[in-house]
Amino acid sequence: MDFELLKTDGAARLGRITTAHGIIDTPVFMPVGTAASVKALTIEELKRLAPQIILNNTYHLMLRPGADLIEKLGGVHCLMNWDGAVLSDSGGFQVWSLASMRKIREDGVEFRSHLDGSLQFLSPEVSVGIQTKMGVDIAMAFDECPAYGLSHAEVEKSMELTHRWARRSLAARTTTALFGIVQGGVYPDLRERSAEEISAMDFDGVAIGGVSVGETKSEMLDVMRHTAPLLPADRPRYLMGVGTPQDLLDGVAAGIDMFDCVMPTRNARNGTLFTSEGKISIKNARFAADEGPLDPNCACVTCRTASRAYLRHLYVTGEIAALVYNTIHNVFFYLDLMRRVRQAIALDSFGAFRETFLSAPINEGS
Amino acid sequence: MDFELLKTDGAARLGRITTAHGIIDTPVFMPVGTAASVKALTIEELKRLAPQIILNNTYHLMLRPGADLIEKLGGVHCLMNWDGAVLSDSGGFQVWSLASMRKIREDGVEFRSHLDGSLQFLSPEVSVGIQTKMGVDIAMAFDECPAYGLSHAEVEKSMELTHRWARRSLAARTTTALFGIVQGGVYPDLRERSAEEISAMDFDGVAIGGVSVGETKSEMLDVMRHTAPLLPADRPRYLMGVGTPQDLLDGVAAGIDMFDCVMPTRNARNGTLFTSEGKISIKNARFAADEGPLDPNCACVTCRTASRAYLRHLYVTGEIAALVYNTIHNVFFYLDLMRRVRQAIALDSFGAFRETFLSAPINEGS
Repeated sequence: MDFELLKTDGAARLGRITTAHGIIDTPVFMPVGTAASVKALTIEELKRLAPQIILNNTYHLMLRPGADLIEKLGGVHCLMNWDGAVLSDSGGFQVWSLASMRKIREDGVEFRSHLDGSLQFLSPEVSVGIQTKMGVDIAMAFDECPAYGLSHAEVEKSMELTHRWARRSLAARTTTALFGIVQGGVYPDLRERSAEEISAMDFDGVAIGGVSVGETKSEMLDVMRHTAPLLPADRPRYLMGVGTPQDLLDGVAAGIDMFDCVMPTRNARNGTLFTSEGKISIKNARFAADEGPLDPNCACVTCRTASRAYLRHLYVTGEIAALVYNTIHNVFFYLDLMRRVRQAIALDSFGAFRETFLSAPINEGS
Repeated sequence: MDFELLKTDGAARLGRITTAHGIIDTPVFMPVGTAASVKALTIEELKRLAPQIILNNTYHLMLRPGADLIEKLGGVHCLMNWDGAVLSDSGGFQVWSLASMRKIREDGVEFRSHLDGSLQFLSPEVSVGIQTKMGVDIAMAFDECPAYGLSHAEVEKSMELTHRWARRSLAARTTTALFGIVQGGVYPDLRERSAEEISAMDFDGVAIGGVSVGETKSEMLDVMRHTAPLLPADRPRYLMGVGTPQDLLDGVAAGIDMFDCVMPTRNARNGTLFTSEGKISIKNARFAADEGPLDPNCACVTCRTASRAYLRHLYVTGEIAALVYNTIHNVFFYLDLMRRVRQAIALDSFGAFRETFLSAPINEGS
């Protein structure tokens, strides 16, 4: 993996990551394909949306279909028939948020699968090993995500474990690119220490973890703005699990290069759609006879072929096609937003672009 | 609507229906788009599968989004953005199979919606009126579908009501093509009388109804084989709600021109897939590491882009994409089967084609 910083516009960065599965123009949003599927999309549909990189979840894939089977099938790219890049998380966050009976020890985490209660174990070595078997382009170090509301001392202890696990993750690395993760909760001094220690290690990129859980929006932004400038300029910076379109623009403004979030796909399945005129709920009765496109300023398949009336009808009748249409649109919206962000940075106009976007009418329509 | 009988091969018929929304080559299979959506498919995906005609269900659409709204939106074609032909059923069968508190009177049927319990009413005039508002290319007469197991006298009484309703349906017709429906249960003499009476009316086509409910396969085939030759040769013959690939070939052999069935779409959602090597259940563990295509002899998007291992993984993990992939394949299989049937009739080789197909290995794999 190679990273090139092409130019800056204020703190915003235009970059390029080169992987064995193609180039990734940054800032980039990575659609989430948890179980080797961006939910509701065939790979063909995904290819037409053309993200340069997607995310897979190690936790889900180690449980089903299993790392050995994935390796036997030639890795996640072969499994999915996806020729773009793939980043996998380490499983740490899902163990924290999904699994039960977690026992965190120095060597790793023992837990029970949320699917069948089976006993499972993840450690830096196991996680990196699984991600290597998955054949991803970018793997993540195994970290511990501290819960929101812990004391300074508790978060510090967790962070120090994350740092020891980071070194072990690096030691277990083979040829796959590996990113480290900065933790430290909401405590600025811990974030500084973590950024310094993780940046000093030989990672191919550095992520900011633990900002999507429990914090208020302003705390999340504070942590991100405080931490981003401390990360090395010559490596990609990845803000994990964030966020709204506004969050992405705030992240870019702070110098973040990579984002992932279930928001566009999960919201799509809940009927919440991002448009150039604000966020709308497609089940709203006011769309029942609306023959116009979902977003008149959008070029996606959904906006080119389905009316708001049809999308509302499909959603309220529980049709599967509603999930497909909505997902296509929301993923397109996020990818298109980042295309425009990159263009703005290239033209030294990101500040104005962000101002215009953030001042647009937001319609929460329910 | 215009029908041209191009040639015959034994009793099998090659024909062409011309509608305002294009030509329909017969024998034809009509995918079921109950609520104005062939379940799991966007209209764009449906267009790539290229059925020349699909079916919409009047019962579902009168409840949601409602006939008046559909009319206001320009009919079902505009609602869906579908430019191919559409046939609608009359609602009679769904009232019989889905609604509750049915009260069948001479004037029509009062019932409660299965969705919200609201009181509803359908009659020949109301049904034809709704289908006219829907703007379909082919509407169906409003009939009564007798339950399986009724006595000769009971079925005769029901059939006579269907005949009176057929005349009233015709009287309510505007410019939309309208098909009559032959009933009569499993009683050959009643089927003969019904075929004679319905054929004598000024319908654009004649359907055989009530053969998909409750009867054994051999009774269904007996009714179909007995009735089909009694229908007028110069109009399309439609076997409603049937069936398996084998049933379709048997129907064609008896001179049927049109079919519809939820089998390919519903089976797809249950993981049961039709292939040139027989019917398979994709959740079977033997596909877990199978890198081959679902059907090596199929040209559909699913078979060109997804392995059996991936399809099984998506299905067992409950991914929405599994429903999309499976539906694409099964609908393609049915449409492709009928393309090959028409080709065989054109070449006077339908008998041999049917023999070969029926002697292929059938694998019920569970």
